[in-house]
Formats: sequence, C-alpha cells, structure tokens
Amino acid sequence: MTPPGATHDPQLRSWVDSANDPTADFPIQNLPLGVFRAESGRHNIGIAIGDQILNLQATAAAGLIDHLDPLITSACRRPTVNALMALDVHAMPALRRALSLLLQHDSPPHPELLVPSAAVEMQLPADIGDYTDFYASIHHATNVGRLFRPDNPLLPNYKYLPIGYHGRASSIVPSGTPVHRPHGQLRPDPNQSPQFGPSRLLDYELEVGFFLGPGNELGSPIPIDEAGRHLFGACLVNDWSARDIQSWEYQPLGPFLAKSFATTISPWVVTMEALVPFRIAAARRPEGDPDPLPYLHSSADQAAGGIDLTLEVYLKTPRMSEPVRLSRASFESMYWTPAQMVAHHSSNGCNLRPGDLIASGTVSGPGDGERGSLLELTARGTQPLQLPSGETRKFLEEGDEIIFRGYCRREGYVRIGFGECHGQVMSPIVMNS
Amino acid sequence: MTPPGATHDPQLRSWVDSANDPTADFPIQNLPLGVFRAESGRHNIGIAIGDQILNLQATAAAGLIDHLDPLITSACRRPTVNALMALDVHAMPALRRALSLLLQHDSPPHPELLVPSAAVEMQLPADIGDYTDFYASIHHATNVGRLFRPDNPLLPNYKYLPIGYHGRASSIVPSGTPVHRPHGQLRPDPNQSPQFGPSRLLDYELEVGFFLGPGNELGSPIPIDEAGRHLFGACLVNDWSARDIQSWEYQPLGPFLAKSFATTISPWVVTMEALVPFRIAAARRPEGDPDPLPYLHSSADQAAGGIDLTLEVYLKTPRMSEPVRLSRASFESMYWTPAQMVAHHSSNGCNLRPGDLIASGTVSGPGDGERGSLLELTARGTQPLQLPSGETRKFLEEGDEIIFRGYCRREGYVRIGFGECHGQVMSPIVMNS
Repeated sequence: MTPPGATHDPQLRSWVDSANDPTADFPIQNLPLGVFRAESGRHNIGIAIGDQILNLQATAAAGLIDHLDPLITSACRRPTVNALMALDVHAMPALRRALSLLLQHDSPPHPELLVPSAAVEMQLPADIGDYTDFYASIHHATNVGRLFRPDNPLLPNYKYLPIGYHGRASSIVPSGTPVHRPHGQLRPDPNQSPQFGPSRLLDYELEVGFFLGPGNELGSPIPIDEAGRHLFGACLVNDWSARDIQSWEYQPLGPFLAKSFATTISPWVVTMEALVPFRIAAARRPEGDPDPLPYLHSSADQAAGGIDLTLEVYLKTPRMSEPVRLSRASFESMYWTPAQMVAHHSSNGCNLRPGDLIASGTVSGPGDGERGSLLELTARGTQPLQLPSGETRKFLEEGDEIIFRGYCRREGYVRIGFGECHGQVMSPIVMNS
Repeated sequence: MTPPGATHDPQLRSWVDSANDPTADFPIQNLPLGVFRAESGRHNIGIAIGDQILNLQATAAAGLIDHLDPLITSACRRPTVNALMALDVHAMPALRRALSLLLQHDSPPHPELLVPSAAVEMQLPADIGDYTDFYASIHHATNVGRLFRPDNPLLPNYKYLPIGYHGRASSIVPSGTPVHRPHGQLRPDPNQSPQFGPSRLLDYELEVGFFLGPGNELGSPIPIDEAGRHLFGACLVNDWSARDIQSWEYQPLGPFLAKSFATTISPWVVTMEALVPFRIAAARRPEGDPDPLPYLHSSADQAAGGIDLTLEVYLKTPRMSEPVRLSRASFESMYWTPAQMVAHHSSNGCNLRPGDLIASGTVSGPGDGERGSLLELTARGTQPLQLPSGETRKFLEEGDEIIFRGYCRREGYVRIGFGECHGQVMSPIVMNS
C-alpha cells in the first residue's frame, strides 16, 4: 500500500473555490473520474473538483499533461475511463500529481477547462464488460437469513468464501436515471398459481462498487497479495431488488429478473489512490470463525484491506420536502475485503477486465439503524417504517426517491466524498401484450 | 415466420466444390457467419462455405454487394458480427440472397475471396455484452434434481418460467481453446472444512446458444410475438462445469466460479434464416402441466418455435484414435422455446443488446443415451462410463477432448450443420500463491 503522499496533503487548496468548502465531496484531495456529455454531444472524461468538472480531454488537448507517459495522456482523451483503468499501478498516482498541481491554489487558473457539474449529464464512467455482485456483509447475510431460517441464518459456506454471483451489465445506469417498477412472475400465495404483474415488494440495496484495473488473462489467477493493484476505484451502487420476483424465481440458480431491471451507480469513480488515508484493518473475525484459506489470506490485506467509509441511505417521498435518513453504516464491518473478492473471483482462472464492476453486496452493520435494505429495516414488510411525513413504508412506492451518500473522514485528512447515487421509482411501463 | 425461400432450395449448388458434399456442414443453403483472423492480423467476418471461408470484408471491398442497403455493406466490413446483428429482420435475408447468388455454381467464381478454413484461426463471432444461461430442458432439470431430491426432482417454479441466470461473458472462448482444470474450494467431506485445490469433478454441458439481434431499450419488454425477430442465429455451447466447486458455492446465489473458468462456443453463427425449414412446434406439454402465462404464450411460437436440431457429444481420450459418441439428443424436446426465453428475459424491462448470448441450458432428452452431461450419464460418478478403449470415466481427465456436433436434417432439404465445438482438458495452472 502506497503511503499517503503529497496529493493527500490536507493544507492543499484549489483555485476552484467550491472545492475548498470542508463539507464538499470533491476537494482537491479527491479528484474522482467520471464521464460527462459535452455540449458537442461527445463523451469526455472529467475530474470532479468542487461543483465543477475539469475536462480531461481539453486538459490533454491543451498540452497541460504532456509531461506524462503518452499512454496516460492518450487514455485521458478517450470517451470512457477503461483505458486509464487498464494502465499499471503507477499511472493514477502520476496523473493525480499532475492534476493536483494543475488545480492547486497557487497554480495559474484555467477556468476554460471547467464545466459546471450542474450543466452536464453524467454517463456511466466505463464500458462495464461484466458485473459481479458479492454478499460480503455478514450482518446483511445474517439479517436476511434470519427472515427465512430463524434457527440457522448463515449457510455453512459463508465464512469460507466470499459468496458472489454474476449480475447483468446491460441494465447498469448512472445516478439520476428513473427506475420503473418491474413486472414479473409473483406468487404471493404459495397455494395459488403464480401471476404476472408489477412487483409489489420493490426494494433498494446499499452497496459499494469497485471498478477493476488491469485485470488478468484467462487461466492466470490474481494472487491475494497482488489483488489490491487490480482495484482502480470505487462508487456507490443501488442494487434495486424486487423481493417478490426474487423469492419465486431464485431456486436453484439464483437471482435473475429480480435484479436485472436496473442497477444504479454514482457517476464518480473515487480512485483507490484517493482512499489511501482511509484504509484500515480488515474487520476482525469473531472468536471461533475459521481463518481465511491461504489463497484468501495476506497479512498486508488483513492489516489495511478495509476501508473506513461511511454510507447513508435517504428516502424522499413525494410528500416530503427534505429526504429522511433511513440508515447509516460503515464499510469497515464487511466480512470480506475487496482484495479477497478479486482473489476469489479469479481463483478459478476467470479473467477480470479493466472496467469490470464488482459490487460488495448490501452493506449492513450490526445495529438496527445500519441495515442497508428495506427488507431488513422492515423485517420483510412486517414492521413498516414510520416516516416524519406521517407516511409509512414497507417497500418502495411510486415517486419515492432513494439517495445514497458515502464519505471518508479521518482526523488530519480532508473529507473525501462519493457524491450521490440517486434513483426515483416510476410507475410500471404498460406491457404491449 | 418467413417461409423457406430461394436460399433454401435443395437443388442449389456452389462453385465451391466442397460445399456440394451432402455430408458437409456448410452447404450454400447454410451460410453461417463467423470471425477469422486474416494473415494481416485483422479480424474479418467470414461466411463458411464447404471447407472454405468467404471473406465478407473483401467481398464488400470488391463492390460485389454494393446493391444492398449501405447499412448492410458497412456492417459486413466490421471486425465482429455485432453490427449485422443490430440490423432489422430484413437485413439477413437480403444479405443471404446476395451471397447465395454470388456463390452459386453458375455465377462467376471468385476464388480470390476465399480462404481455406484450415488455414485460419477463428475468433469469437461477436463482442458478447452479456451472457445468460437458461435451464430449459425439463429432462436435464429432472435428471439433476433426482440426484439431489429423489422424491421431488423438479422445483415448483420450473413449469411456470424459464429458469435462467447471468453467466460470465469474459471467459467465453472459441472452439479449440484449451480448458485448464480450475482450482476452487471443495468440500468432499461435509464433516470437514473445505480445501482449495484442483476440481476433481470436471464436466461438460451440451447447450445451444442464441445470439441476440436488435434487442430492446431498458424498460421496454419484448412481447412474445416479437421475440423471434430478436434472435439472430445459433451456435453450440459447452458450459464447462466443476461440480464440486458448484455444490459448495452455489447456495444461496447460484453458480459462480463453478462455471466462469471457461465457456466454449462453436465459431459459426447459423442464422435463424438458415434454420427456417427446420422450425417445428414447441414440445407438447404433458397432460396436467400449466399453460404458459400469457406473456410467454403465442400461438405462432407454439406452432413453430421449436427447432429440429440433433446434437451429439463425443469424447476422445488420449488413448483413443477416434472419438466415441457419448450421447445424442434433439433440441425439439426443450420445455421452453428460445422466443419464450427472450420474452421472459426482457419481461422486467431488462435490455438485451445485439451480440448478447443466451444459452439453452443442458440439452438432455428423455432417454438414457440422451443425457447432455457426465453428471447425468454417470449419476454423479456412481456409474462410470465404460469406454471402447477399456478406460472408464466418471468425470473428465487431463487430455480428454470433448466435441459437440449439431445438425438439422429434413426430407426435401439440404443438411445444415453447426460445425464443431471442441475443447481439450489441460492440467491445472500452478498457482502463484
């Protein structure tokens, strides 16, 4: 793990004023990457700085990063972040140093390279080849398992391997995309035949996503000690879930249409480089739990494979003027680290490619207010939430907005924010047949 | 469904002599599409004709298909078939007519447009955005279910919806790519802790894959009556499976690393247009089975949604001089049609994109010799196969080659073959850690 360097210096300020607000998500120490649609219609990589976006294509075209490796400068001019993700572990620190220098308060300002965030539409940051969803919070797995198997909530494999499954890449959408309630087969009464109709048990799942860096060739697993180098950056993920579709369809091959109607991600990729000051030890395993098998164990990962990242879920119903917070949890409580997910995923030889997305699974902490889904918060609808508006919620209703926020904070460092992951539930689309 | 047209005329012969052999997989009535690596290193679309490949890029460059819609001719010059897959339902019949005319015996021969199949390396035909694997053979589902739940082999949802799950796209490889035995967590003794090591129960699964045509926008399901138009063509799929990894990992989210180490496909996409003469009624459901729900039911699909396609599995161990056939089954026995898979897959609004691959799941028929995996043929290794070489097999061993073949045959029409889907099992790659 690289020690925090000059780009993390808390004294560093930018000539972009809004980046110097201590509550900003995107100070000069963050510099997350995203893709925005320019006025020309072209997709450009941008760097969030305060309430502005630095146009990386224009920055490269202006010759301001010509001192970097040409592989880096040419990757900065592409319409997605994939080519930057494909570069080696030295590329992002070099690019960050150059951008940090360019944006710092005593450098010549370049307002011509900025576009206001509010003026552009964010796209997906990368072409996502494959999307994998893990299940790495033991608190979530236990909460969910308890609803179905009160005496035996955790399955026997849980503590031995990071459970995961292949998700659908095509229906991943950037924050702000409306989410239509899906139709599907439902069988509310197990004694009746299933029917086809709009899902009644629509839910969100609070997750953290990791974009893959260089990745591996088919047949060449990534050892756990090298896995960290293959993590490029992180975002927030809402793994929208239709609980009623899921419970009927998922046996024996797992979730399918209950998930594939939409997955929302926050548009900014916070690089692992920006997260260096917030890396912490992996969660300590309770006494009696098995040690990770050698291919999942590395002392470096145990020492610094966790992330001190706070995650919040907000709900705003059409009757509310302000969102209300439903939960707050920390990523530090995860049972498996991102590096363990990478090592496990590739342990059979499966190739991971730059831009692939792996999500953590729902992040729930041990406490009641730390549950990352309505399924958990309402005990499958049996304990409806009482909202300040006087409304109640078992599951999501039309017009409800779900907003995720995430941030890292630590004494001696500047707050690093993730921006928002936002989606509003819309009425189901009328079927043609 | 388009009626068989001139391009299916059994009297039609080609100036490519090898295409006129009645046992050939690729007569002039077939014209499947694939991608080959030319001497220049460039990837070109090719059309298989006998033992030759017509270079579609060169055909377009020579102006020989200039009378077609420019969208078609430009798609013919791309390095993958995706752009052709994206075109509407009229494109392939038009291109087929043009190519059929170009290749027929009384047209001027163009040997300069041919490359011998034996001289080139076939690639994947398309960039596969997402790969979905179904479970549409009720005989397979019953055979497998019986091994685990003898009294209740089929789960209650099976007859109501085509069960499917998201597969891994990155590890799909073209026929001929060696397949290394994967490592994984195994727990042969349920009373012991799991260990990490090479899979001992390596298997194949005989499947048919369908490449998606135009597809749908997110949120706009494809009605069952239109689903057929979104199927571009078919290939053979070997869904290699590590049974021991699978049985330990798959609860509760389904197969993951047991499948993602490799999936082999035959390199030629046989177009749905070429299969028109072999479309048959969907398999009749046994008395008492539920009718498909309306969103999965179409009288046109019931009448002609099946495919009379014979599928064969061959094994060649290192000690054999000739492969031995392990099974032969027909795709006509599938419980769900490809159109039903498309309608179901998109019924929640999930977007399907040109070049996406959906596979049928293991094709097994009702008889003993019609079982599409070793799991079924050997009853999970309890009844080893006796091979003509004097060897036995419970599961696959190093050096074993698995070869799938598929073909359509019908009185009054020329045989349409799929070519081979071939893979050889190689020893596990030594892990770095």
